Amino acid sequence: MIKVAIVGATGYTGLELLKLLAQHEHVEIAAVTSNSKAGAHVTSIYPHFKGILDITLSSTDELNPAEFDVVFLGLPHGISMDFVKKAGLESTRIIDLSGDFRLSSPDLYNTWYPREHVFPEAYTQAVYGLPELFREDIRDAVLVANPGCYPTSAILPLVPLIKEDIIDAGHIFVDAKSGVTGAGAHAKPNTHYPVVNDNFSAYGIATHRHTPEMQDVALRYSGVEPRIQFTPHLLPVSRGILATCYGILTTDIEEEHIQNIYENYYGNEPFVRLVDAPPELNHIRGSNFCDIFFKLDKRTGHIITVSCIDNMVKGAAGQAVQNMNIMFGFEETSGLHQTPLYP
Amino acid sequence: MIKVAIVGATGYTGLELLKLLAQHEHVEIAAVTSNSKAGAHVTSIYPHFKGILDITLSSTDELNPAEFDVVFLGLPHGISMDFVKKAGLESTRIIDLSGDFRLSSPDLYNTWYPREHVFPEAYTQAVYGLPELFREDIRDAVLVANPGCYPTSAILPLVPLIKEDIIDAGHIFVDAKSGVTGAGAHAKPNTHYPVVNDNFSAYGIATHRHTPEMQDVALRYSGVEPRIQFTPHLLPVSRGILATCYGILTTDIEEEHIQNIYENYYGNEPFVRLVDAPPELNHIRGSNFCDIFFKLDKRTGHIITVSCIDNMVKGAAGQAVQNMNIMFGFEETSGLHQTPLYP
Amino acid sequence: MIKVAIVGATGYTGLELLKLLAQHEHVEIAAVTSNSKAGAHVTSIYPHFKGILDITLSSTDELNPAEFDVVFLGLPHGISMDFVKKAGLESTRIIDLSGDFRLSSPDLYNTWYPREHVFPEAYTQAVYGLPELFREDIRDAVLVANPGCYPTSAILPLVPLIKEDIIDAGHIFVDAKSGVTGAGAHAKPNTHYPVVNDNFSAYGIATHRHTPEMQDVALRYSGVEPRIQFTPHLLPVSRGILATCYGILTTDIEEEHIQNIYENYYGNEPFVRLVDAPPELNHIRGSNFCDIFFKLDKRTGHIITVSCIDNMVKGAAGQAVQNMNIMFGFEETSGLHQTPLYP
Amino acid sequence: MIKVAIVGATGYTGLELLKLLAQHEHVEIAAVTSNSKAGAHVTSIYPHFKGILDITLSSTDELNPAEFDVVFLGLPHGISMDFVKKAGLESTRIIDLSGDFRLSSPDLYNTWYPREHVFPEAYTQAVYGLPELFREDIRDAVLVANPGCYPTSAILPLVPLIKEDIIDAGHIFVDAKSGVTGAGAHAKPNTHYPVVNDNFSAYGIATHRHTPEMQDVALRYSGVEPRIQFTPHLLPVSRGILATCYGILTTDIEEEHIQNIYENYYGNEPFVRLVDAPPELNHIRGSNFCDIFFKLDKRTGHIITVSCIDNMVKGAAGQAVQNMNIMFGFEETSGLHQTPLYP
Repeated sequence: MIKVAIVGATGYTGLELLKLLAQHEHVEIAAVTSNSKAGAHVTSIYPHFKGILDITLSSTDELNPAEFDVVFLGLPHGISMDFVKKAGLESTRIIDLSGDFRLSSPDLYNTWYPREHVFPEAYTQAVYGLPELFREDIRDAVLVANPGCYPTSAILPLVPLIKEDIIDAGHIFVDAKSGVTGAGAHAKPNTHYPVVNDNFSAYGIATHRHTPEMQDVALRYSGVEPRIQFTPHLLPVSRGILATCYGILTTDIEEEHIQNIYENYYGNEPFVRLVDAPPELNHIRGSNFCDIFFKLDKRTGHIITVSCIDNMVKGAAGQAVQNMNIMFGFEETSGLHQTPLYP
Repeated sequence: MIKVAIVGATGYTGLELLKLLAQHEHVEIAAVTSNSKAGAHVTSIYPHFKGILDITLSSTDELNPAEFDVVFLGLPHGISMDFVKKAGLESTRIIDLSGDFRLSSPDLYNTWYPREHVFPEAYTQAVYGLPELFREDIRDAVLVANPGCYPTSAILPLVPLIKEDIIDAGHIFVDAKSGVTGAGAHAKPNTHYPVVNDNFSAYGIATHRHTPEMQDVALRYSGVEPRIQFTPHLLPVSRGILATCYGILTTDIEEEHIQNIYENYYGNEPFVRLVDAPPELNHIRGSNFCDIFFKLDKRTGHIITVSCIDNMVKGAAGQAVQNMNIMFGFEETSGLHQTPLYP
Repeated sequence: MIKVAIVGATGYTGLELLKLLAQHEHVEIAAVTSNSKAGAHVTSIYPHFKGILDITLSSTDELNPAEFDVVFLGLPHGISMDFVKKAGLESTRIIDLSGDFRLSSPDLYNTWYPREHVFPEAYTQAVYGLPELFREDIRDAVLVANPGCYPTSAILPLVPLIKEDIIDAGHIFVDAKSGVTGAGAHAKPNTHYPVVNDNFSAYGIATHRHTPEMQDVALRYSGVEPRIQFTPHLLPVSRGILATCYGILTTDIEEEHIQNIYENYYGNEPFVRLVDAPPELNHIRGSNFCDIFFKLDKRTGHIITVSCIDNMVKGAAGQAVQNMNIMFGFEETSGLHQTPLYP
Repeated sequence: MIKVAIVGATGYTGLELLKLLAQHEHVEIAAVTSNSKAGAHVTSIYPHFKGILDITLSSTDELNPAEFDVVFLGLPHGISMDFVKKAGLESTRIIDLSGDFRLSSPDLYNTWYPREHVFPEAYTQAVYGLPELFREDIRDAVLVANPGCYPTSAILPLVPLIKEDIIDAGHIFVDAKSGVTGAGAHAKPNTHYPVVNDNFSAYGIATHRHTPEMQDVALRYSGVEPRIQFTPHLLPVSRGILATCYGILTTDIEEEHIQNIYENYYGNEPFVRLVDAPPELNHIRGSNFCDIFFKLDKRTGHIITVSCIDNMVKGAAGQAVQNMNIMFGFEETSGLHQTPLYP
């Protein structure tokens, strides 16, 4: 049993971490923190945990990281780095679910994020926590930057095509659609129920911060920096991301060839399912799966991929647990056997 | 053409008034106010009005009521009475959509509402604006208290049964379910999309302020004060209220008899539809109709009524326009010919 | 490990049984049948099981019940009894999720169900599978009639009040609201998405078959036959039932007294949670919990209860697994540790 | 007043035509037909019309087209052409809402549609009923092929860019998302509420019949045949299409230039709104508007457009009424003043 702390536990990523870790056979949840809710019982915030979790929240500021084997950070972008700086990189191992250590350099961070980075020295240690691409680096990492939800959904189908030079890296289109939990647990005017219900919209066109994350990770993995046109949309659903990606084929190629490439990359991955019909959100809801489908269109010379994840699981807390399993030598699927909730 | 002002126009009742009055043949919208949004163009708040409304909001505080034939108040409870007091009852005619003048006495108001009433003198002038029951009083009213959404949905089916002594007034159950627009345009934790979506809950059990409103109006109309058990619920829909009401029959009676009673009360009403199958929200969405269905259960000795309104139309803005039509001698259906949006 | 068969597995109850039993530590799913889909792989019908279940459906007609320790029946009402008759009561133990053996007599069945019962002899053996009320009988049962979803949601809060003579048994009102999975997996005009979305309606007023089931079970348990006015409604959600029940108090009583009664009945039950705020569907979604809340209204002399279950879990498959656990001496919570999926 | 017939009125396009034409000042609905529902009152099928429409359906087969000034066809693809052939092109004017006469040749039709065309001679007479592009041809047309919903949403933003040679016609991506009414009024397994709710999926990838319609119309209007990659998706909403389109710029160009082009094309159009923030489905629900937004991304050299329509109005019945208004010399906006239903 390892001792874990969940810092910033009242947001949706913290909530999902609580859910997953509470049933993890190798984990003792030793601290759950929130500065605003310190002293409150977890069921006073999330009544559905009654009978499942009996934990009182403590203060984030008073946490001593050294008392835990690993600390999960469910803090907002721009706040998380303060915690990491204060804790340092030697007191414990950290899995940070914010965007503060995902990009390849503090300079890139400073270009796309509003607050200047306070702990640039940590970048040499930070590992991008996408197990399918960086499993070996994760194993010994002291600081794991858990990937963004949109990047997870798009990088997994695209990276093999980029690395194998199947598509023109200069014109890649990622049209992604996310459920509202991706916007966090805090009520905002644009998440007011009557505004979202029976509605649909695009946002952050050409400006969303997950664009550099996708490009940067693809570069690190494949050696080629793609130029990605990313458009997020807000779906009237609670959980899930579906990404439809478009690439222009560099050469005449057969479906079978691409199928082989995907199988080489992901055939043994426990959480990537290569599916032969377009996946749907309710095939993966509540689970750590990423379903990937592709279609060649000979008429146009394009490839279309459709991929699905639960943004709270494979797009956040589930992937964080997967990273923890790798870091501590547990079965990679420990605590992640949730069957999708269908329907 | 009469000149109207809409005060407090950025909430949902103000929004719906704008929509209805913009197409009313006898109305000129001469002022639209909001203290927080004064100076803003209406399409900057509600882009769907582009090409339909070209109005800039002015300040509520600077409005001179005497310049208008009628002023609609879309202000919150407890604020509306300040406006009415300041305007007085002689400067113009007022249709108040808040709860500030709905009850029969300031004492009752003070019991159920948090702020002590500031203008108790106005109670002798205030008319409860439910046309089906108080049409004649509305005609000459200077101050119309537009009914609450839940009371409208429940009073219409219940009052004939109470007044005709069909049911035991001591045990009436109103189990009502409302869409989220009933909670207003302001985002709150309990209206956050992921909290409402695929969810359902009861609230305000035994304590909701629409309880005394229902009892009070029934008393005024029928001479009998019923004791009503009212339970509101929050539906994952944007618009609409469905009320399921239960009464205990005082005597053995036939369906036909009750059908006759309802036809006597509502057979000539333009906005009440007596229907022979349970009504549904999407039969009335966007329209000013109240659909009423009833069923006798001889086995139990109970009567069950099911009624539906759009809380923003018959439950608020549409009823306010209907009241205005009566007050100014227009066709009662002027501006209220919206066909329900189905599906 | 026991060997189980799931008969009629393509409906929603069969689907949920598959999900729960696939992860049950004491169970081997030895057969999954469907006459219409025999020969199909389960993932061709339910792709979300990819990587989780590797099972091919066989024919119901060719199943030999004697080869299994227990057979779950996910067949429709009126069909299930044919299977039971053919299998007999000695070949294996049966948990029937249909309504065919729930009522106390074949006569009552013939009054409320369309097809005359074909196996009335089995009634003496059939046990109503609500563990909180009939646990001891379930232990040795050869035929368990798994309760209906609405009755489960209403009987649990009401039976203590009836048995302890807290409420007038002659006037009980059950206003229940169910998600659409309660209507089954087969697409029908009234479950077409645009018909249900943003809509809400009542149905089966005074005529629903779960009425006699509620009355009958209450009678069997308490010795008093209540007269229940039951109104089901269709919610625009996938899963979950919320029941709002109303009783007229027989005597002046305090909340504390009623709280004690509920704790005596359910304080040690693993799946009943007595909650101190109105429960919501997303507190129990995907789990086997029944949450119960009550409120006394001294003003009216009424008690209001609000209770919630997931109709597919505690209202069907989860309760069936709970019954199996009791029948075979497993921990009652085995395979039923699902944390509610929130949000 | 002109006399109109609506043929095949029980589907969703027929339903919406009924709604719009019932309130059209120049129209008398002289016949409403359905072979399957002949003899039924319209409110027995659509109860929300109670008090609004008092019409009994007659048989399609017995309709004499010559008795009407115009006949609207709400029949399915492949059936509509039979009606047109039987009626001939001289008996009356026809507005066909199916796909049977939309493409530029019967050969193209035979390639993409399952049934061989029965009336190829009519193609020389058929006019594609998109008023913004073909208004003059519509004026005198005897047979108007009302556009498909997806093509309407995508052609309007794309055609100016293609015709003005702003984008590479060889690589255009249309990622479109539609509400479920686009799938028709008939319940199907993939429109079952629990299957669609809280879900999202792509379908018809690379194979949807609206692909050739888009390409063909762009060719007819611009002289350039684009190669369009069209991917439709199913949204959990009732009404509305949002299309996100991507083009690769052929040259370095400024936003202002493109803004000018759009204003030249659509600045005077009553139903196209050029908006300066991404449009949303609830800005246009229930109305005949098409909202268009665009964004240049200098970083990538791409243009992104986002456009919205109500698939039942501008995507079907509203556009048909707009065509009728043009054909008969009415104000083009007659009967089409519906304010979007927000929220």
